[in-house]
Amino acid sequence: MLLKSNIKDLKKTIKPENILLSYEERFCYAQDSTNIKENLPSPDAVIFVENIDEVINIVKYANKHKIPIISRGAGTNMVGACTCLNGGIVLNFSKMNKILEFSPENMTMKVQPGVVLNDIKQLAESSGLFYPPDPSNYKVSTIGGSIAQSSGGAMSFKYGTTKDYILSLTVVLADGTLMQLGSGTIKDAVGYHLNQLIIGSEGTLAIVVEAELKLIPKPEKSAVVISYFDSINDSVNGVNEIIKNRVFPSTIDFLDKNAISTIESFYPTGLETNHACLLLTEVDGFASSIDTQLESVKNALMNANAANIITINDDILKERVWTARRASYAAVTRLAPDVVTDDIVVPRNALYEMIDSCINICNKYKLQLCIIGHVGDGNLHPQIALDLDNDEEYKNYLNAKSEIYKKAIELGGTISAEHGVGCEKISYIESAVDQNSLEYMKRIKLLFDPNNILNPGKIFNL
Amino acid sequence: MLLKSNIKDLKKTIKPENILLSYEERFCYAQDSTNIKENLPSPDAVIFVENIDEVINIVKYANKHKIPIISRGAGTNMVGACTCLNGGIVLNFSKMNKILEFSPENMTMKVQPGVVLNDIKQLAESSGLFYPPDPSNYKVSTIGGSIAQSSGGAMSFKYGTTKDYILSLTVVLADGTLMQLGSGTIKDAVGYHLNQLIIGSEGTLAIVVEAELKLIPKPEKSAVVISYFDSINDSVNGVNEIIKNRVFPSTIDFLDKNAISTIESFYPTGLETNHACLLLTEVDGFASSIDTQLESVKNALMNANAANIITINDDILKERVWTARRASYAAVTRLAPDVVTDDIVVPRNALYEMIDSCINICNKYKLQLCIIGHVGDGNLHPQIALDLDNDEEYKNYLNAKSEIYKKAIELGGTISAEHGVGCEKISYIESAVDQNSLEYMKRIKLLFDPNNILNPGKIFNL
Repeated sequence: MLLKSNIKDLKKTIKPENILLSYEERFCYAQDSTNIKENLPSPDAVIFVENIDEVINIVKYANKHKIPIISRGAGTNMVGACTCLNGGIVLNFSKMNKILEFSPENMTMKVQPGVVLNDIKQLAESSGLFYPPDPSNYKVSTIGGSIAQSSGGAMSFKYGTTKDYILSLTVVLADGTLMQLGSGTIKDAVGYHLNQLIIGSEGTLAIVVEAELKLIPKPEKSAVVISYFDSINDSVNGVNEIIKNRVFPSTIDFLDKNAISTIESFYPTGLETNHACLLLTEVDGFASSIDTQLESVKNALMNANAANIITINDDILKERVWTARRASYAAVTRLAPDVVTDDIVVPRNALYEMIDSCINICNKYKLQLCIIGHVGDGNLHPQIALDLDNDEEYKNYLNAKSEIYKKAIELGGTISAEHGVGCEKISYIESAVDQNSLEYMKRIKLLFDPNNILNPGKIFNL
Repeated sequence: MLLKSNIKDLKKTIKPENILLSYEERFCYAQDSTNIKENLPSPDAVIFVENIDEVINIVKYANKHKIPIISRGAGTNMVGACTCLNGGIVLNFSKMNKILEFSPENMTMKVQPGVVLNDIKQLAESSGLFYPPDPSNYKVSTIGGSIAQSSGGAMSFKYGTTKDYILSLTVVLADGTLMQLGSGTIKDAVGYHLNQLIIGSEGTLAIVVEAELKLIPKPEKSAVVISYFDSINDSVNGVNEIIKNRVFPSTIDFLDKNAISTIESFYPTGLETNHACLLLTEVDGFASSIDTQLESVKNALMNANAANIITINDDILKERVWTARRASYAAVTRLAPDVVTDDIVVPRNALYEMIDSCINICNKYKLQLCIIGHVGDGNLHPQIALDLDNDEEYKNYLNAKSEIYKKAIELGGTISAEHGVGCEKISYIESAVDQNSLEYMKRIKLLFDPNNILNPGKIFNL
């Protein structure tokens, strides 16, 4: 809780338009994109930062007065990573949204944390380059959030996640120390990979104030194959068959029957709604290789008993299908007052069992479930539509969630592939990671942030 | 220094054939593949470990008695990372060389640290899969060493380095704690990336006893283009032209005039020795894309004034060219009694200036220099042939090395791209990394290894 004296101190250095203190304004920052039933505390202040010095000064002050600091970009995360469990200051980075340097020759881009992913992608593409990480919300989400949550996306199967595209970071520590991690070179074998420690640490270890990104040449062409299956098991075999043929699709996404119907009624695209599921497979590369890849993918899918296979070469239609796919969350919101999107991952050979378990568990608890997944990675996003205000349904949801996580872990998987832990999954981390490694995570946290001011109550409790 | 009582204790639990104590045997472990002038201390004992429990027991004992532990696989590293500066125990992992699991479906492989990279590559390829990291010594070096030094190789430009292919690690800490880091899934956003902290930490934070590797589908075909240039600047432009055309070669290696001549006289392959340098560009992918890629690469190289361009599609000839390239170190040994191979990296737009500086610096100090490089990454390996016993030449070499590092840093690069720091570059780390980040590396080291028993005197001094 900020004291009046704290607010007075902060106001001395912050431009009036950059500090939000009214009840209504602060209330807007109590939530992020996570659907949380509980009423959450609002932050005591929201401060728009404009430069690194401001960040340092505020953090130093907060550390001295033991005030929580929650860094926030677009607030699009799905695990409550931007919530203010004990009040404190939200540092809003949306004004630190400059692309500082772009070197096509070095294939690098230096950015501030508030830059929207889509801006990075578009600038890269203007020079034939490519920033691959593509969380569904990339048109609004920021690179700072991507780094904090180690975001993935549909293309992670072939291209990896955010951690694979960060060359160097400039960060501010809890005591205000400014630190440069990594060099701007593609390879760097000098000392510990501290930047990799910061990536995915959800703002609990340090505050990222600049990042240098690695870009790659943009593939010349891509094409999509939609394949429908009358059995989920066949679709999982389809994924394996594709890879057996040594094709490396940029994406293999999965939608179950409910997801297909829900999306189709929300954003009609001509998807066939009478099958058990579909796979959305995108291949990319040189134009000269696309036909070979499509042929190979189609053969693989036929071998796996696909009921129908449709190839989409046309860019406009392809974008339409992807828009439909990315609209899945919006679509599911029409089924019930609330939707919770989860994020689990298993080794691919356990995928069928995991999908089957999700369906059985949700049936048992009478919950409406749509399953979307990046199945190349073994990554599933069960989306449960419910009314969080219905106590029984909420209780059922909590039980289902818990059973789904248990199953994922039992199958050698874990409770998050690309969303993170935040406060939403904090009570499950002990069952998901080795106890000794959790202990060392806590020790590292205390080393970097002894007063626990940086995004407290996220990932684990100290 | 091990006391007699220590040796007696250790002998109680170690099979007699697994502990080496004679002067001659220990002497063989004083050096690794680094060319170090000084006489180095031998370890007090070399112990071949056979399983994780043995590692735990030995480490616990060593920690209690403050005995240094130096983990070693094939001892192929180039920065003295396996040297025993204060004696201690070398843990030799060459008997822990089992491939524990191979799942083509999950595209993963679980290995012990003593497995030779080539065995991993070959097993993967038997199922159409690919483990890309390819340090020149991959036919003898072990995965444990690759993880410790975060090895790269010629293919890092397209495929990344070892850190990009490690899903999970099982490690033993200095106090004997066994710890599992990461899950076996392709994506994992649960907690801090401790495995990335261990990778590249050169055995100073923990001892890797198992690793789960990520594999990818093996590209169907590859082809090599050799292009000769009469100006180094033109060759650097050639690299940029290739990328401008949106081709992403798996390798763009560089050899300067001296390197070409030296390799050609050691292992005659028909390389043209009358040019300033050559680029060895390998493209890979679907067979159907190879011709397009070759055409594009050749056009780019012609635009950059290549003096001659030769395409190699034939697998046997391709292997011959690569063998020649990888033999560069062996070739250079024929120029003088000793060779020191360095490893620096700069942003690619500073490559010409860096190459030019290396040549000028070595000319100034009258040193014989061959330059090899993975120039896609901006990574150069200056190889200096000299007589380390010639005091003046040695002094010149030290000066040249220091000036080369200074220039790399000045150009926004750093002192190692893929070999690491070891003890060889320890005195330069302060000039290469941010002082605050170095301070945090030291704090993390003390958190993991308060008695500094794990590979002491490497990367930095505490």
